[in-house]
Amino acid sequence: MKRGLFISVIGGSDCSAEGARLDGGVGRELAKRGVTLICGGLQGVMEAACRGAASQGGVTVGILPGDSRKDANPYVQIPIVTGMGYARNAIVAKSGQAVIAIGGSYGTLSEIAHALQNDIPVIGLGTWSLSRGGKQDKSIILAQNPVDAVEKALALAQKGGKDGRH
Amino acid sequence: MKRGLFISVIGGSDCSAEGARLDGGVGRELAKRGVTLICGGLQGVMEAACRGAASQGGVTVGILPGDSRKDANPYVQIPIVTGMGYARNAIVAKSGQAVIAIGGSYGTLSEIAHALQNDIPVIGLGTWSLSRGGKQDKSIILAQNPVDAVEKALALAQKGGKDGRH
Amino acid sequence: MKRGLFISVIGGSDCSAEGARLDGGVGRELAKRGVTLICGGLQGVMEAACRGAASQGGVTVGILPGDSRKDANPYVQIPIVTGMGYARNAIVAKSGQAVIAIGGSYGTLSEIAHALQNDIPVIGLGTWSLSRGGKQDKSIILAQNPVDAVEKALALAQKGGKDGRH
Amino acid sequence: MKRGLFISVIGGSDCSAEGARLDGGVGRELAKRGVTLICGGLQGVMEAACRGAASQGGVTVGILPGDSRKDANPYVQIPIVTGMGYARNAIVAKSGQAVIAIGGSYGTLSEIAHALQNDIPVIGLGTWSLSRGGKQDKSIILAQNPVDAVEKALALAQKGGKDGRH
Repeated sequence: MKRGLFISVIGGSDCSAEGARLDGGVGRELAKRGVTLICGGLQGVMEAACRGAASQGGVTVGILPGDSRKDANPYVQIPIVTGMGYARNAIVAKSGQAVIAIGGSYGTLSEIAHALQNDIPVIGLGTWSLSRGGKQDKSIILAQNPVDAVEKALALAQKGGKDGRH
Repeated sequence: MKRGLFISVIGGSDCSAEGARLDGGVGRELAKRGVTLICGGLQGVMEAACRGAASQGGVTVGILPGDSRKDANPYVQIPIVTGMGYARNAIVAKSGQAVIAIGGSYGTLSEIAHALQNDIPVIGLGTWSLSRGGKQDKSIILAQNPVDAVEKALALAQKGGKDGRH
Repeated sequence: MKRGLFISVIGGSDCSAEGARLDGGVGRELAKRGVTLICGGLQGVMEAACRGAASQGGVTVGILPGDSRKDANPYVQIPIVTGMGYARNAIVAKSGQAVIAIGGSYGTLSEIAHALQNDIPVIGLGTWSLSRGGKQDKSIILAQNPVDAVEKALALAQKGGKDGRH
Repeated sequence: MKRGLFISVIGGSDCSAEGARLDGGVGRELAKRGVTLICGGLQGVMEAACRGAASQGGVTVGILPGDSRKDANPYVQIPIVTGMGYARNAIVAKSGQAVIAIGGSYGTLSEIAHALQNDIPVIGLGTWSLSRGGKQDKSIILAQNPVDAVEKALALAQKGGKDGRH
């Protein structure tokens, strides 16, 4: 059985109308390419991305912090019930072969960090920027728009899938 | 979007030929009824159940203990990479609306316990039996064969899905 | 620096007066022998055991399921805040070099299972009894009273500490 | 029973001689003030901080990623064995009433993020700096040296302990 590709989309649980447009675009573009979307399963960026994916018949997985599948947004097809609170952020990061970070707050930052710690590529759309010792960290790959983000994520995920450890 | 039903199949990472026949039967019967199979993603009971489900075009989710999706058996369509070791057993239990336990060792016992602690029904096929204070605990519902196990699990999952908290 | 010994005491969050007597005895006997008591940090058996240990100047660690150290019972000196719900049960089990199980419900059963899965010895005082395939599992070592439980746990913990993997 | 204060010290598993001097200073200053040091239990910053604390008779807790207490550095008095890999970073962050971040890589960044997500104050000594939308995030409170870091952390931890939720 050939397994498909998995991309995690991370971002805050609230998002503006403009944000929702971007997120939905990411979801749609992933679904059009047959990629399974992994996310935290809640509202905001997560819901907008799932809605976009669902509109194109894509598969969506929501890794929930709480104890009930009812917390999942209505576009999550496969809810994973962790009951682990935000310690589940590590699982959201690790379950993608690449991560697309959109906007976001500290929860998103923790997912970016868990991904980078595991050598999983992170593509950023208007998200955190990091520096250490006065020097910028270039690990987050910047994207201009949803199509750009998805293409960069897919290229890196495929590379990892063939040669890398993920 | 109407979400389907999710049943977790738990059991040890090694199983006999007879075991594999039972497990495969459970996987096939779940898939025939359109139920998504959740499991720990590794070998033994988990692989046999996934293979059975895949043979009928069913969807299979593997919640892995390690850091790599490559640990998943070849019949897992959606690998969830937890990196949490056997603490992931709680997630396997909670992500099902009912749990079918087949044979198994202490890992399976921990999943049974996590399910019962969360009021998730457990159906047993040749698995652990529990007692306290010299009195048998009747929480594990006994099944005679794969079809019986799947029918009992589905009846309870549907009840929980409509009226219950899961 | 010579590190001391660590014994986990597990049991339900409610206990009878008789239960509290047993649990307090276990806490006291551990403290008298200079052993650090690990537990889930909440009420019932956990609180009674911590109170017993504190009465003898013992050190008590509570590995909490929630997000606040205020959930800890007043006899926990060192609260560990996991925010992971009952997935923390695996940590309670693994952090002891032996486990003493007193009474208890399904949460306790999950801790027993996680301990046995990790080859950590389990001593039982009026707790679960397990069987598989009609045959009793003898892994839980029965104790007659708190002193007996503590002596058995210590003997096994010391053995593991010297020769074993824990 | 009056419970003491708990400060988490986070940082990478390797550190320079200069780093070790800073970390050791933080550990010593915490111990002199009777504060329990929480850390990830391994080498580098964690070991240097524990050694500093131990030199002043302080209490040290190491929340380990792996399955064995033998992974702990020799200055950890109380090893917590999570077996959860880097998902344990959330626990390291949450178990402190304030967090002192020293240097560090992506693991440290994830701990900073988990702390900020939980409204736990973070004091930085030569660690990450964050910005979003071209604007610097001021959540990490900068310290000049170990004494300054410890005094700022303690002031904030005490405030949280009295009025706040931690």
